Amino acid sequence: MATEPVWIAGQWRQLDGQAAFQALDPSTGLPIESHFPISSWADCDLALDAAVDAFWELQQLGPNALSDFLLAYADAIDSDADGLVEIAHRETALAKAPRLKDVELPRTTNQLRLAAKAAQTGSWSQPIIDTKLNIRSCLEPLGPVAVFGPNNFPFAFGSISGGDFAAAIAAGCPVIAKANTGHPGTTLRFAKLAESAIRQTGLPSATIQLIYRTSHEDGARLVSDPRIGATGYTGSRHAGLVLKEAADRAGKPIYLELSSVNPVVLLPGAIQERSDALLDEYVTSGLMGTGQFCTNPGLLLLLESEASEQWIGKLADRYQKAPAGTLLSRNVQKSLQQGISLLEQAGAKRLTTAAPAVEGGRCSCANTLLRITGTQFLNDPEMFQTEIFGNAALIVVASSISQLQQILLQLEGNLTGCIYSDTQGSDDEWYDILAPLLAHRVGRLLNDKMPTGVAVSPAMNHGGPYPSTGHPGFTAVGIPTSIGRFAKLTCYDALRQARLPWVLRDPNPTGQTWRCIDGQWTTDHLPGAR
Amino acid sequence: MATEPVWIAGQWRQLDGQAAFQALDPSTGLPIESHFPISSWADCDLALDAAVDAFWELQQLGPNALSDFLLAYADAIDSDADGLVEIAHRETALAKAPRLKDVELPRTTNQLRLAAKAAQTGSWSQPIIDTKLNIRSCLEPLGPVAVFGPNNFPFAFGSISGGDFAAAIAAGCPVIAKANTGHPGTTLRFAKLAESAIRQTGLPSATIQLIYRTSHEDGARLVSDPRIGATGYTGSRHAGLVLKEAADRAGKPIYLELSSVNPVVLLPGAIQERSDALLDEYVTSGLMGTGQFCTNPGLLLLLESEASEQWIGKLADRYQKAPAGTLLSRNVQKSLQQGISLLEQAGAKRLTTAAPAVEGGRCSCANTLLRITGTQFLNDPEMFQTEIFGNAALIVVASSISQLQQILLQLEGNLTGCIYSDTQGSDDEWYDILAPLLAHRVGRLLNDKMPTGVAVSPAMNHGGPYPSTGHPGFTAVGIPTSIGRFAKLTCYDALRQARLPWVLRDPNPTGQTWRCIDGQWTTDHLPGAR
Repeated sequence: MATEPVWIAGQWRQLDGQAAFQALDPSTGLPIESHFPISSWADCDLALDAAVDAFWELQQLGPNALSDFLLAYADAIDSDADGLVEIAHRETALAKAPRLKDVELPRTTNQLRLAAKAAQTGSWSQPIIDTKLNIRSCLEPLGPVAVFGPNNFPFAFGSISGGDFAAAIAAGCPVIAKANTGHPGTTLRFAKLAESAIRQTGLPSATIQLIYRTSHEDGARLVSDPRIGATGYTGSRHAGLVLKEAADRAGKPIYLELSSVNPVVLLPGAIQERSDALLDEYVTSGLMGTGQFCTNPGLLLLLESEASEQWIGKLADRYQKAPAGTLLSRNVQKSLQQGISLLEQAGAKRLTTAAPAVEGGRCSCANTLLRITGTQFLNDPEMFQTEIFGNAALIVVASSISQLQQILLQLEGNLTGCIYSDTQGSDDEWYDILAPLLAHRVGRLLNDKMPTGVAVSPAMNHGGPYPSTGHPGFTAVGIPTSIGRFAKLTCYDALRQARLPWVLRDPNPTGQTWRCIDGQWTTDHLPGAR
Repeated sequence: MATEPVWIAGQWRQLDGQAAFQALDPSTGLPIESHFPISSWADCDLALDAAVDAFWELQQLGPNALSDFLLAYADAIDSDADGLVEIAHRETALAKAPRLKDVELPRTTNQLRLAAKAAQTGSWSQPIIDTKLNIRSCLEPLGPVAVFGPNNFPFAFGSISGGDFAAAIAAGCPVIAKANTGHPGTTLRFAKLAESAIRQTGLPSATIQLIYRTSHEDGARLVSDPRIGATGYTGSRHAGLVLKEAADRAGKPIYLELSSVNPVVLLPGAIQERSDALLDEYVTSGLMGTGQFCTNPGLLLLLESEASEQWIGKLADRYQKAPAGTLLSRNVQKSLQQGISLLEQAGAKRLTTAAPAVEGGRCSCANTLLRITGTQFLNDPEMFQTEIFGNAALIVVASSISQLQQILLQLEGNLTGCIYSDTQGSDDEWYDILAPLLAHRVGRLLNDKMPTGVAVSPAMNHGGPYPSTGHPGFTAVGIPTSIGRFAKLTCYDALRQARLPWVLRDPNPTGQTWRCIDGQWTTDHLPGAR
């Protein structure tokens, strides 16, 4: 059986005869032709050696080499947009347009171009200079980075094209990409484009490498190997925590984006004021991408009232009537169905009709709303924070504001939290009580806005307290901030001028590099330089 | 037996009848009168509850409350300098002057005053504002912080007075201080001063709490408790890694400063050029504080040559003749002696005479130099990187520059690394080969300078790759940078102006708060504000 090649040490290596897998077309449930190899440790070992060599070579090249590559790669992706959209659509069933072609692809190339700019100016490295003591520090690349991409964003979070990838390359770290097994063909197509951009710009050929799948043991070994600098992982909590344990034990940084129910609080004034608009917003956000967003608003919190009951009734109606989208895979479908059953067994009441179980065919599940009382939540907060990834949500109806407070205090760490309040001030007193509690448990607090849009902005935080991520100080989205994850702080004490890294020398290296000199942020040269 | 009180929830609580311990006077080897209780989990539990309450109260107070306290506390410490020096000297045998009174105490109050300034301006929180999207982010306090201080700096790294403490308070995190068992009396004296400053400035009384000792199990439970925000730990690698494992499993940030051999490379031209000056520098740094510095230069790397042999001979002579200082405790003495034996058993050759073993009396050990070849090092790099904390060092004589390269590639993560080279350029070629390898393995690279001075500068990095610390991106010294360890990144998306944290509102809150607005660092208001 012929398998697609892995890309290791600049070579496309055929691993015929090794164990292999096929991706599934989620809209038919049928396997797609190509076979992809499952790598053994030997592949990882080769890739790690090559990545270390590439790392040292990269350090010799100037920052322009990195930015030239990122720009060339973004251009190559743009030129192959149709081909990428075609295969990604087939492997994920995500809509070709607007989703893949008009939203996710431009987001991806935009990220790469922002990363190019960041690599070129070096401001991401936060140079700090103490001129009196001649002590200078900045962030520097950690070493080879393993990137495990998620199933739900084949482009923008893809292991060889997405945010972690762009950040690692901008920092100067070679990437060992582990394809998501849901879209190996898409990832391979990106790799070919990356290869042409590497050739064009002269980066070391092992700056980027690609494998498709390993055993769980080899994955854990990879993230804890002495040759690895750090790992970026986006995916399920269970698999992520296995990797985290291995990396932690070896003292290797690992940045995880795991799971999040993204609580949304609707205060009574807001429902009173704009009930229909809230319905529209919630349905759009909740069912967007068939609910398969890290920031899907999966936990809705309301206060007991007649108005809340009416609103919930209308919402259930809308969920019932909306067409059920296609899910990313059979596994997503299965865990969604299991998650719903689990919550029902724990006492959640279903507000929408379950679709009849269908074996095979399109991967999907009926749009589902469940509800519980605040008391039920407080009796088993862990169970009722189970992430049900997909087109389902849990509504919690609290009996009082103080019960709502108790619920917020029981929240695990989440990526986002939203509060909707009225514009006339009737909710303000309650907002003031709830907002600090919610802000403390989330990476991003939103007002009157659903969480599914994650803007690529330097001010974005796509991160949050454990277990939504592994460390609450870092963001996976937003350049230049996200680049710092793949860096170590290095201080240079009493170095001679010519021996300093380029961002720390007296003259401002680009005229646009932001540096903190004696407590003042500036793009100037050091006093007296040049 | 009457014990000294713990300080929990604003109360001095007498725990007579509980297990207790005494500190030792290292200069006599005799116990000091006072008995200090070993806390049970009940104490930790009470402290955690009180700390959570204090945390929420602190969030209600403005930043001036924190800075007022830090300034008042620094003043109180200054007024009690003689008393603090007296007891710290008795508990640690560190010299009263210049060390404790003229160096460590002013460093401590300076840190607290810098922390006050940082709390007041809020620049430490790195506010980032995207005005087009109305997305804003900053660092915010993580919650109660447990601080475990080391034995070797009773003031400047003390759990209730040092760098971790100052950083946590400046961030707005209450501190649960775990005294180092070597100097509980000093820590208690600080607590009394802190209490008066808390009263004076009106902070919640549980903003600071003090216990002296727990079981290992309770320590691990403390750092992983859901109520804890983060932990700062400085101490031995073994105990630190036990805490790290517990904290990691619970997803709780823990900042560790563990151990480091701080390699120093002496290139041939430097020895040729200034042999005697290098001897002076090395002896001063290596024996400073009886070698009990985190940044003690414990691993000396030279190239084989006649000049190196002469230099080593003179160094051994100086070590032999210098008086052996007093060590911090019997435990330090024992592990130093054990470490030396271990290295000798592994083949290291002793260059200095061993002092006859003395039972009891003053805690000390003969100044010790050991040597091995580069080949010996490469045959067992782990063994020969054992930290021997105290007045001992290991010299590695490499046969060639390429062997030296191999040795640097085998280095574990260290806090510091130094390279000495000549001023005429004869070492430059070798410097260029070695420096990138060394810089990658350390938090701070020095040129022609010993590592024992750790300036309190925003550009300092007192951190480094594992296992010198737990995460290579953070520093334990240097305000404001060190404050970020005790913070989470929080993003505010579409918030109404009045609901934003003070550092993120349109007007610059202090006129001096550095914020990154649309990619430009500035102390200005937002365009159009005010």
